[in-house]
Amino acid sequence: MILTVTLNAALDVTYGVDSLRPRASHRVGAVHRRAGGKGVNVARVLAGRGRAVTVTGLVGGPTGALVREDLRAVRGLRDALVPVSGESRRTVTVVSGDDGDATVFNERGPQVSPSEWRAFAGRFAELVREASVVALCGSLPPGLPSDAYAQLVARAAETGVPTVLDTSGAPLLDALGARPDVVKPNAAELVSATGCEDAAAGAERLRGLGARSVVVSSGPGGLLAVTPGGRRRAVPPERLAGNPTGAGDACVAALAAGLADGAHWGDVLSDAVALSAAAVACPVAGDVDAATYERFRTTVTVEDLHAPQPH
Amino acid sequence: MILTVTLNAALDVTYGVDSLRPRASHRVGAVHRRAGGKGVNVARVLAGRGRAVTVTGLVGGPTGALVREDLRAVRGLRDALVPVSGESRRTVTVVSGDDGDATVFNERGPQVSPSEWRAFAGRFAELVREASVVALCGSLPPGLPSDAYAQLVARAAETGVPTVLDTSGAPLLDALGARPDVVKPNAAELVSATGCEDAAAGAERLRGLGARSVVVSSGPGGLLAVTPGGRRRAVPPERLAGNPTGAGDACVAALAAGLADGAHWGDVLSDAVALSAAAVACPVAGDVDAATYERFRTTVTVEDLHAPQPH
Repeated sequence: MILTVTLNAALDVTYGVDSLRPRASHRVGAVHRRAGGKGVNVARVLAGRGRAVTVTGLVGGPTGALVREDLRAVRGLRDALVPVSGESRRTVTVVSGDDGDATVFNERGPQVSPSEWRAFAGRFAELVREASVVALCGSLPPGLPSDAYAQLVARAAETGVPTVLDTSGAPLLDALGARPDVVKPNAAELVSATGCEDAAAGAERLRGLGARSVVVSSGPGGLLAVTPGGRRRAVPPERLAGNPTGAGDACVAALAAGLADGAHWGDVLSDAVALSAAAVACPVAGDVDAATYERFRTTVTVEDLHAPQPH
Repeated sequence: MILTVTLNAALDVTYGVDSLRPRASHRVGAVHRRAGGKGVNVARVLAGRGRAVTVTGLVGGPTGALVREDLRAVRGLRDALVPVSGESRRTVTVVSGDDGDATVFNERGPQVSPSEWRAFAGRFAELVREASVVALCGSLPPGLPSDAYAQLVARAAETGVPTVLDTSGAPLLDALGARPDVVKPNAAELVSATGCEDAAAGAERLRGLGARSVVVSSGPGGLLAVTPGGRRRAVPPERLAGNPTGAGDACVAALAAGLADGAHWGDVLSDAVALSAAAVACPVAGDVDAATYERFRTTVTVEDLHAPQPH
């Protein structure tokens, strides 16, 4: 079983409007609601590929109840979310009918108490014993210690379970000392965390701080992986138009599946690029387009790079 | 007791953002949630003035539960909302911190079945017997007949209870045949309903279709009342900056209170203009600023107008 952690689970709400006009009053047409948060999307992708997957994290209030209700409809996905007294956040994405542009509003999430965090850590320690891999994804809700991911990564490592971490800022930097197996920042998050404009240099910086391997996603530019075995770049055969929101989550799903299978890095990266492209081809994060996946998985270019020679 | 009807009750959610930028992703700072819908706001204003008030209408789902929870905190307000199986709508207002501008997204509301509408009509018939006045406010949720207000106005008339109606478009036009006592369109709604650019002509048109009296609100321009006793204009002493969202609801509250008391039209209009101004001075619809109300109530100008002579 692959375990995904979503500490700030959300209800993702999409509003269809004719056209977004600041300062105006808009009639909302279609309203879609769906369980979200990065780890939930990762789990959805994995469940869709027939993987046994368990979702944990924090969820609360009437919005949290809607999150759980939506997850019940996903075949192969087990809900092991832990309740908190605060109300789970919503994200509202306003999609303009005229140009398809999306404008996103992200609530911060519920205030989590120290005792709620301890209860979660206890539950996590149980769940991780049944897991082959743990994927830890997304932002932290208010009230959690910024080393929350460090604590979970350390607990997984004690249990001998490898980890994939997809977060940014302080929660990312504070987790590195616990030695996560794979860290997946996107290019902007990497620059923000390290100050390095060069992706390879930034990835080495994160490795120097404790990450075993770093996979940097650059949208249509593909992936750069810096691992103990060297550097590789994986590039999609073509550029796809679509919805980039779920591409990072699909990438994490592929990395987690590859770790669970003990696959070779070249194959893992091909799969991750193909699955990311297949997510771009779908309008909703957590979905992947099977035809795009099949078309891309054999045509991704994976190149071994040599580290630059020292001067 | 004054009865207010909100067939499309809402949870009004306000998101604070630094600045609204179309196509960007926004971190939402403060989130405020409050029971809303025009009739709910009218009831809040009346309760705040010490009036016994009952709120009815349709409410459902987890969002409906939050609406009811919020109403429990309002002293003097009785919740007689009728449950439906669909989920109550939310409105999301995004307020920019840089300029204070508000951008509003209004969901349509739950699908209401014919049997749910019949159940509501039965409950309304009971409630109206205890009421001195009924205020019917706002849009209709999907599934209701467009003559829903006509049915309720007719039932109130049969019971001998006067009605104030604040709606627009087809629900307004379809209600006039049932002879509501006071109809309160704003200037834009009046033009849209009648095609008359001139407010007095538009008001006469609505009276011709069945409205006994028409009060047209024109923001800082004040009110024009066309009644069986003649025409009057009520104008505030000064223009106030602020939030115009709740001004119409405060006006309806004053009209309902005036009808309940059998007050003279001149006094009712002064009070309505002062209470509208007091709502503009508050950041949230349903609240009124007591100092502004006291300052305006004695300084509103009410002028008797003569109908133009026939050619």
